[in-house]
Amino acid sequence: MSSPKNAFYAQSGGVTSVINVSAAAVIETARRYPEKIGKVYAGRDGIIGALTEDLIDTSVESPAAIAALKHTPAGAFGSCRYKLKGFDKNLAEYERLIEVFKAHDIGYFFYNGGGDSADTCLKVSQLGEKMDYPIQAIHIPKTMDNDLPLTDCCPGFGSVAKYTAVSIREAGFDLKSMCKTSTKVFILEVMGRHAGWTAAAGGLAAENEGDDPHIILFPEVVFDEAKFLARVKHSVDTYGYCTIVASEGIKNAEGKFVADAGSVDAFGHTQLGGVASTLATMIKTKLGLKYHYAIADYLMRAARHVASKTDVEQAYAVGEAAVEFAVAGKGGVMVAIERQADEPYTWTVGEAPLDQVANVEKKMPAEFISEDGFHITEACRRYLAPLIAGEDHPPYRNGLPAYVQLENTPVEKKTGREFTVA
Amino acid sequence: MSSPKNAFYAQSGGVTSVINVSAAAVIETARRYPEKIGKVYAGRDGIIGALTEDLIDTSVESPAAIAALKHTPAGAFGSCRYKLKGFDKNLAEYERLIEVFKAHDIGYFFYNGGGDSADTCLKVSQLGEKMDYPIQAIHIPKTMDNDLPLTDCCPGFGSVAKYTAVSIREAGFDLKSMCKTSTKVFILEVMGRHAGWTAAAGGLAAENEGDDPHIILFPEVVFDEAKFLARVKHSVDTYGYCTIVASEGIKNAEGKFVADAGSVDAFGHTQLGGVASTLATMIKTKLGLKYHYAIADYLMRAARHVASKTDVEQAYAVGEAAVEFAVAGKGGVMVAIERQADEPYTWTVGEAPLDQVANVEKKMPAEFISEDGFHITEACRRYLAPLIAGEDHPPYRNGLPAYVQLENTPVEKKTGREFTVA
Repeated sequence: MSSPKNAFYAQSGGVTSVINVSAAAVIETARRYPEKIGKVYAGRDGIIGALTEDLIDTSVESPAAIAALKHTPAGAFGSCRYKLKGFDKNLAEYERLIEVFKAHDIGYFFYNGGGDSADTCLKVSQLGEKMDYPIQAIHIPKTMDNDLPLTDCCPGFGSVAKYTAVSIREAGFDLKSMCKTSTKVFILEVMGRHAGWTAAAGGLAAENEGDDPHIILFPEVVFDEAKFLARVKHSVDTYGYCTIVASEGIKNAEGKFVADAGSVDAFGHTQLGGVASTLATMIKTKLGLKYHYAIADYLMRAARHVASKTDVEQAYAVGEAAVEFAVAGKGGVMVAIERQADEPYTWTVGEAPLDQVANVEKKMPAEFISEDGFHITEACRRYLAPLIAGEDHPPYRNGLPAYVQLENTPVEKKTGREFTVA
Repeated sequence: MSSPKNAFYAQSGGVTSVINVSAAAVIETARRYPEKIGKVYAGRDGIIGALTEDLIDTSVESPAAIAALKHTPAGAFGSCRYKLKGFDKNLAEYERLIEVFKAHDIGYFFYNGGGDSADTCLKVSQLGEKMDYPIQAIHIPKTMDNDLPLTDCCPGFGSVAKYTAVSIREAGFDLKSMCKTSTKVFILEVMGRHAGWTAAAGGLAAENEGDDPHIILFPEVVFDEAKFLARVKHSVDTYGYCTIVASEGIKNAEGKFVADAGSVDAFGHTQLGGVASTLATMIKTKLGLKYHYAIADYLMRAARHVASKTDVEQAYAVGEAAVEFAVAGKGGVMVAIERQADEPYTWTVGEAPLDQVANVEKKMPAEFISEDGFHITEACRRYLAPLIAGEDHPPYRNGLPAYVQLENTPVEKKTGREFTVA
């Protein structure tokens, strides 16, 4: 009887506060199937680790260290922004992946990422067959942006959503208590390039009339300065102040980002920044109101200290299911979360074909945005509310979250050749 | 036997995540002394409520609502940025305070704020005697900036400190896992105009060599661009990335704010903003490194969800002591926290004469800043560490902190005259 195949696991793209939960699930679940899965090797810095044969042996990590991943944000093995090109443009990279996988007897490929990595996962699956080295490629969803199709939500998003809603509620309480003589307008700028999910989540804090935030700016809604300023003024006149959650990705009628920093990242995405200061200047100049703004940036996607319990549970479930799917002989799929009911929220784990996931971006449906374009609807609230439910406080040591740093022991190289990543 | 005098309580200046804890302590403690203290009236929007005779009757709030203040950030009765001028410039305001206090039979004045309000507290105490309406004025310390003298620390600061340290640790984990192909430098801009306490607190996250943050920029240290950039480069070369906590108040050799938004608030303080973007541009231009930055702004002082337990306990203790001092016949003092030992941290509550507190700003001592000016020393760590110790998670409802909003029932006016606040 042949010894079981090893597994490869890698984290891809922007990390989240719960992607390590999925990593823990993959490793812990694989350890439960020693007759089917040998070692779990992780890619150092994501797929780059596979290309450069820089693999990490997770089998030498203690069960306690792996368990601690469940309360540790970011990517424990390193992630990367590195998108593999199409077969036509760079077949060599895919062939290199198969070469490394072969050398290390890897039969399972678990790729934990967003839309771009679903595409890579699909191509690895296809090429493996073509090169007569079949590999079970399974995509484990992760994006703080919640923009993957065919899954109820993306692990990582629920915690970002909770961060946004908690933060705007807290800032709103602050504003409300000071607005008589101090700041009248507060803007919270949130990440989320093309889809307004993270901004929408702020809307959950508004449970009653007048609650914060008063205004949400979505990338899905064309930014209209006059309409926006009128709404700000109305808020200040009515409540004494105005709280705004603004997506970094809002665009004007000409389709230009309201704040465009001009640089471009490895995926060809424009790097944004400065929406809050642009809006603030507008408010100061046109309305003469004192403003403050916060920019959440990475804090929101790293905020494991205020993670959603639902999100943590789902991040674990998708990692666990990925391994169970693999053990059951499946491949070429993404693990998907399937909503059964809104309230109480019930969900199961299913699968979606990779070719329908790759490079598709799920935007906010129109019925989730209020008619005036400045808030969320009840339908949106029903969708979002369960995703932030529950708390999962990390353990603390010396007043700080006790996050783990793994040993990340390298696996001995076997291919005998260097491969340079572009 | 005459009926007991009523008490007046007001919140002043920038609110914190635990100032309501002190409010709860004042109200709960006063309710334990019905033979000495009648009702506790709160000023709506701080001292402005006293001037305009807009008082709130806290006696109609339920014990549960008052208890919920202990987990609710910001100022439940409203606070204000309104500094009373000197006797020579605006005696009418102080006389008006005494008029309102007399009309409502107020014998105790509890003022919960920073240096400016300590000054007001002192003047009310002095004028009361002069006008033959003696009033026991007691100052309850509160500043997120930790800049009051004669107290070990200021309630509100410990939680801000915890927020900063937690946030930079989380962002650092994020950077570390992505730096191979993505962002190399992350800047967290924190509030703190003249004193570097809030920035220093970030240093607590650096428990081991290489831990975040790599660099702290204090307002107490002259900003030197070349030295700073060399340090950023060193960090990126050594660790692959660089994390920075920057105080909004850093100044260059000419004494100018590195980022000066130009506007001025009611206290005559310059309104700052934009340090992070200034530093980021510098890093991009001179070192060619990809950056991200977050601006914590009000989020840090409102973040009750990640409050320090020590801070919550001290905020309660100073409120409770204020009332007990008053009941014991004291006045003209600030309640002070007195450190007895660093480790384990033990502290008691004492008192400090108001004339030594008012308008004195406690800066970071030189021995708390490392010789190169970019980090904290062990002495600073010993001082700061206990202040962020312990967690005090608020209760959650629907995935969000269940913060209370009081009824804030107005007290019937009695002076029969309007008073306009400048």
